[in-house]
Amino acid sequence: MSDNIFWHQTHITKTDRQKKHGHKSAVFWFTGLSGSGKSTLANQLEKELFALNYSTYLLDGDNIRHGLNKDLHFSNADRVENIRRIGEVSKLFVDAGIVVLSAFVSPFEADRNIVRSLFSDSEFYEIYVECPVEECEKRDPKGLYKKAREGKIKEFTGIQSPYEIPENPDLLINTQQNNLEQCTELLKNFIQEKLKD
Amino acid sequence: MSDNIFWHQTHITKTDRQKKHGHKSAVFWFTGLSGSGKSTLANQLEKELFALNYSTYLLDGDNIRHGLNKDLHFSNADRVENIRRIGEVSKLFVDAGIVVLSAFVSPFEADRNIVRSLFSDSEFYEIYVECPVEECEKRDPKGLYKKAREGKIKEFTGIQSPYEIPENPDLLINTQQNNLEQCTELLKNFIQEKLKD
Repeated sequence: MSDNIFWHQTHITKTDRQKKHGHKSAVFWFTGLSGSGKSTLANQLEKELFALNYSTYLLDGDNIRHGLNKDLHFSNADRVENIRRIGEVSKLFVDAGIVVLSAFVSPFEADRNIVRSLFSDSEFYEIYVECPVEECEKRDPKGLYKKAREGKIKEFTGIQSPYEIPENPDLLINTQQNNLEQCTELLKNFIQEKLKD
Repeated sequence: MSDNIFWHQTHITKTDRQKKHGHKSAVFWFTGLSGSGKSTLANQLEKELFALNYSTYLLDGDNIRHGLNKDLHFSNADRVENIRRIGEVSKLFVDAGIVVLSAFVSPFEADRNIVRSLFSDSEFYEIYVECPVEECEKRDPKGLYKKAREGKIKEFTGIQSPYEIPENPDLLINTQQNNLEQCTELLKNFIQEKLKD
């Protein structure tokens, strides 16, 4: 009988996939206030890494909020679940050998630490995108601070709800003191270093 | 002021990523009874596609149940949500340019159609892994049928809970009449054809 052969399974592993893509895989987790520049930086980085032939994917509100997490709202439980799921999806991508750039406010240290706990030390890097709330509010690229001030958005991070500054980020990028080019250069060097064999 | 430049975003697109990987991306959704051979076939296919230099990822119970969907149980609502999330994650991978092989019993037509509705016609293929329940129960690779018969598992698909046979699968593979090699060959040709430009 060939049953045993039929049911014998071998698997392509994370290491196999990393070898194919030509680099290690990891998640670079951008955290910071709305308007601090997380998405802009993550997008710019993806462009640069793509040009260098890295296999990348960017997770942000655009592809998560209306899809996987469209059932979640802004209660505390839902905010925790939001970040938990993004962490688990990041883990799948890392398992697939892909370099993940995740850009979410993720204001609470406890939630960020839950994500970190899913990964080995060399697979998760917390990048704190630092920018004073006054500057973020001045930029207000999505008009969200304005809405928060008008009371149209409740519990907006930085206005009515706290942002817990990372205590030990793997990298800190200040987007008030540095321009996009400088920030990108810093990040590109950091990420390439971490993805080396 | 450089603010406008700082906030100008360009994006790497799905098409960019597909070009980099050298093939289109899509999800091949294996549905069928427990023991029908879904995971075995999906794993074997991933090996073959990997050898042909495709960028692939396999989603199955092993990497979903204890991670992303560990909060879900076996109520009807949870079963729907289980498949919905897997569909959304598949969509992210397809957006990342990856060929996804998903292997889940997914017994209900309505749930499978929800997943299908997330994709364009050329991005989602339903593969019905056909095998009589008697044969699946004889194989019983995980001992689940035995537990279901003993009443240790409730509402087991094929025993106490129905499996809705796909009405119009994109491909039907019968694992009782064909051996692993034959099934794999059929699938490999099918998938390669669908991923051509």
